[in-house]
Formats: sequence, structure tokens, C-alpha cells
Amino acid sequence: MKPIYYEDGALKMLDQTLLPTQEVIHSYTDYREIAQAIVAMIVRGAPAIGVTAAYGVYFGAEEFKNQPAETFFKSMDTVCETLRATRPTAVNLFWAVDRMAGVIRANADKNPIQITALLKQEADAICAEDIEMCRTMGAYGAALIHKKDTILTHCNAGALATADYGTALGVVRAAWEAGKEISVYADETRPFLQGARLTAYELHKDGIPVTLITDNMAGWMMKQGKIDCVVVGADRIARNGDVANKIGTYSVSILAKAHGIPFYVAAPTSTIDFDMWSGDDIVIEERDCREISHIKGQQIAPDGVAMENPAFDVTPHQNVTAIITEKGVVYPPYDINIPALQES
Amino acid sequence: MKPIYYEDGALKMLDQTLLPTQEVIHSYTDYREIAQAIVAMIVRGAPAIGVTAAYGVYFGAEEFKNQPAETFFKSMDTVCETLRATRPTAVNLFWAVDRMAGVIRANADKNPIQITALLKQEADAICAEDIEMCRTMGAYGAALIHKKDTILTHCNAGALATADYGTALGVVRAAWEAGKEISVYADETRPFLQGARLTAYELHKDGIPVTLITDNMAGWMMKQGKIDCVVVGADRIARNGDVANKIGTYSVSILAKAHGIPFYVAAPTSTIDFDMWSGDDIVIEERDCREISHIKGQQIAPDGVAMENPAFDVTPHQNVTAIITEKGVVYPPYDINIPALQES
Repeated sequence: MKPIYYEDGALKMLDQTLLPTQEVIHSYTDYREIAQAIVAMIVRGAPAIGVTAAYGVYFGAEEFKNQPAETFFKSMDTVCETLRATRPTAVNLFWAVDRMAGVIRANADKNPIQITALLKQEADAICAEDIEMCRTMGAYGAALIHKKDTILTHCNAGALATADYGTALGVVRAAWEAGKEISVYADETRPFLQGARLTAYELHKDGIPVTLITDNMAGWMMKQGKIDCVVVGADRIARNGDVANKIGTYSVSILAKAHGIPFYVAAPTSTIDFDMWSGDDIVIEERDCREISHIKGQQIAPDGVAMENPAFDVTPHQNVTAIITEKGVVYPPYDINIPALQES
Repeated sequence: MKPIYYEDGALKMLDQTLLPTQEVIHSYTDYREIAQAIVAMIVRGAPAIGVTAAYGVYFGAEEFKNQPAETFFKSMDTVCETLRATRPTAVNLFWAVDRMAGVIRANADKNPIQITALLKQEADAICAEDIEMCRTMGAYGAALIHKKDTILTHCNAGALATADYGTALGVVRAAWEAGKEISVYADETRPFLQGARLTAYELHKDGIPVTLITDNMAGWMMKQGKIDCVVVGADRIARNGDVANKIGTYSVSILAKAHGIPFYVAAPTSTIDFDMWSGDDIVIEERDCREISHIKGQQIAPDGVAMENPAFDVTPHQNVTAIITEKGVVYPPYDINIPALQES
């Protein structure tokens, strides 16, 4: 299940705002529209946003490759800035754009057409690496899952959040493929309902047992002994192991701790912001309150009522049992073991 | 704001399934339709269900009062059973029906027409007492609220959940009327959205500052120091202080405890089930999963996915700072102080 892929000269995107009732694939060649698709959450999920932004840089280059070099380089700065400005929290976005910008810089002696070809290769590489990372992460993570475990997940850190296979759901898939007879509880994840619309959708489609619950049921399921572990993704991980992820993740981490349930985060090392010392510094995106007051155009809250809509929260490292990466499973003390990843 | 009231020979009900976008008042005289309105959650909230059921018994009597005494008494058994069978968790329902049945028993020597008149008086009394209890509870509870406190509440334990004024929101109203400059965070309370549709609606209408959040944001607000205390209602309280309330209340209690925030329950003593020794014995209603998969007729989850929909959960007494009743504020040890209420 690939939410984004390059085909016939265009970037194809499965419209995640229309799932699970409609499966619509859009085709993009304009970097502005690609940036807008990220803002509108046609594509979402930190790794998938990274891959999308990489292709965005490439399509920007396609547009300007016949311009004089100076114009090309200047335009590419705008392209990169436009893509960087789409969403503030997921670090993979900045990581991917920086990597593409690095290709431009490193090949400044070549002509725009040559550079554009290299950017296409780089975007393809980022995409292919993402899938490879998910599979490696899945294998590492699956070793932490016991036979017949029931796994709680929040939001969608699945195939739909990556180029394919998923991070948290990559762990689920790998455990399932290893014959562990696992099952999953999916938090619906208000306000954007990624759990109901995407996680339930992709697991059900793959035949992996999944039970959908509302976010406020997770604690009660834990109390009844129905949850063996939690696996979530991440949008940004600070150097000390603090994890920014979809709003509600923090609450789940507190609940898991109170019930003695392991809380795992699955994320590629591109999600780690090695320059950020603690989660306190992570910028939390505030989104339009209409996401809360309306569902599919139906009004559910009174007019004029105040709302807050932080899209993410930060789970302190003390609540994180382990972080599953493509380089292996990282345990506390994170402030030592995370920086060590950078060298490995 | 009265969600139920007797007027011109009929029981009037504000349709709470249509709020906040439509204010529709239905008129009932048939006890079967009144029972169905409870099932369909036209009216909801433990105290309001109790008052409604009391009037349901009265309207049953109106229907059979011209029958021979034997037929009348037999029919009234059916009326009471029908009303008792509507919802399993809220104890006020059983309490109110039992109280009405007690009037029938105590007056078995009178004729059906006389008994029916007494049932009307008793239903009116239950309704009036409910409002009185809410105001008394509010006064006791307001003393626990500090100036400028921000109060988190879950579900709707407001005027709309009672005959008027509310239990948890009665505490809020009393603190507000006392000039304490409080404000409220309302959890939207999936799946039925009582927080978004009802709590936000009635507080906003009364000019009390309220901010609506999704259920999964509560922990993050606490983490940021935005919540000073939690006040919720209850559907049933066991003799040991375990509290059944809307699904999600248990999670809020764990989050409050983890953040050192007081967790108060406001409920009349009619909500206490003195015959139940612990919350483990409380029957939890499972409702139709369509409440999760669809919102206002819009499908948000894929077809064929498993779901669970417990309408309530049980908060253990260890997580409850105090219980605010119309007889005063009850503190631990609850297994001593709750039974003492029965005698008082």
C-alpha cells in the first residue's frame, strides 16, 4: 500500500483525507501543489511527508531546469523554502529538503538539467531507503513483540505514513509475518481520525486483526488487561529521547506507565533531531479548529465556542521504554544512546 | 435550561441528539415512547434519566387508570419493567422507578385514579428535588474551587443531564455565580460527543468561559499546567467509592493523579448504590458501534472493522479526591464515609 509514488512523470498521491470511503489518487507535477497537498494533509505521516517533499524539490527543478543557472539556483531556494514552510513539527520534512538542497549545493558546478536528473535520483533513493528502513525497523521491533500480544497504536504510523510498510505498523506487520498471532487496538485519533480512517483501513485490508476504539477508551482497555504493549510512530525525537507525536500520544504514555505496559516508539533515525537537546524546544503545530468543530462537513460543536487544536504533543523520554530505529533498538539512557546513533 | 419538564399534560424533552445545531422539543404522553427516548438518548445523564423515568411511570398510570384495579397493578408492573430495561448502568433510573413503584405499593388500598394523582405528585417531587439537590451540591462543590481555577470536565453532567443546573456543571455554575472567575475545558467525549454538543453548548449559552478540546488533549493540557482540577458527574457510585461514569473518565482520573490534580465527582446520593460493594460489579452498557463508525450519518471508519463501544468505565476510589453530594463533600475512607451518608 503505497500512499505516494512516482509514475509516468508525475507524483501520485492517494488522497488520505478521503479514506476510508473513497480511494482517489491525485497526480502532481507542480511543487506548489505538492506543498499544498502536505498542508491539506492529502499526505501525512512524518516519513511520507519527507519523501513527498523530496519529490517536491525535484518537480521544482523540472520547472526551472531550462532557466539560466543563476535563476535556477535562486528559484530552487524558493522551492525549498515553500516546502519547508508546509508543516512545522515533523523533522523528516526538513531532513529530506536539506538532503535535496545538499545535492544542489554539491553539484553547483553542473548545469541545471544535470542537477535535476540527480535530484530525481535522490528523491527515488529517499523513497526506496524509506521502505528499506521500515522493513529493517519492523524486524528489530518484531523481536520485542510476544506471541499473541495485543498492541495499542495511536494515529497512523503505517504504510500510509511512509513510502510503504510503516514504522509502528511496520513492527506490527513484521510480527504478523513472523506468525506471532498478534492483534491491534487502534485509537481513532481525533480530530483528524487517522486511526479510524487509516490504521483500521490498512490493517483490515492486510487481514491483520484490528479493533477500533475511541481515544478515551484506551485506558479502560489497559485496566481490563487487554493491552500488552503500545507502539507508536514519531514526528520528531529530541536528543534526550523526548518524542513529539500526534496529539494524544502523551496521554497514552502516561496510561501505559500507570498500567506497567511497555511503550515503544518506532521511527527512522531521520526523525531524530540531533541538534535539539530536549522536547521542550519542539514547535507544536496548531491547526484550524474546524477540524474539531466539524466532521466531514457536519457541525458537532456550537458556534462561537473557543477551542484549542495542537496537532502534536511531546512524550517525555521517561515514559518511553525503547525507540525502534533502522539501526537497532535504542534503550535509556537516551541522552547517551541517541547521540551514539549519529556516529553509527 | 431544562431538558425535561411537564407542561400541558405532556412530558417535554429537548432532543439532545440534535444539539447544538437544532433546538427541538418533543412532547410525550406514552410511557413506551418515553422509554424509547431514554434508549435513543434524546434524554441522557443519570439524574435526568431518573426524572424522565419517574414521569414515564406516571404516564403509564394515566393510560391504565380507568382499568379495574387488578389490571392496573399488573400493567404498572409492565410499565416499570419497560422503563427499568432502557439502560443498565445509571442507578438513578432504578432508584426513581423504585420510588414510584413504592408509591403504588404504599397506596394499594386506593383506586387507580387516586394512585395516578399521587404518582404525578411524586414525579413532580423527584424533579423539584433534583434541581434543589443540584443547587445544594453546587454550593458544597464551589467551596473546593479556587479563584481563577480552570476546571476540566468530561461528558455532560450539566443542566442537560439533570432537571436543571447540573451536578459537575452545578459546581461550575455555583463557583461562577460566586464570582470566582473560573474557566472550563470540556472534553468532546467521543463517541456521542456530549462534551462538544452539550457541555460547550450550555456553558457558552450561560456566558461561562469554556474551551473545547478532543479527549486525547486532556493530558497534554495538564502537562502544560492548564488544568487546576477535574470535576465530573457519575452514573453509579459503589459503596466503596468506585465511580461508574462516561467512558474516558477512568483515563482522566489516571492523568489527573499523574499530574497531582484533584479529581472530584459531583453526584446526588441517589447515584450511590449502597447495595453494591465495589465498582467491579457494575454492569457496563455496550452500545451500537455505529456511534463510533458514523458521525451524523457520515462514515468515518472502514466497513467490516471490529469495534468496542463501552458507554461507561469505572474509576477506582483511589483516584477520587472527593465526592460532592447534596449532603456534603465526602472524603476517603469511602467505605466508611459513604455508608454513613445512608443514615444521615
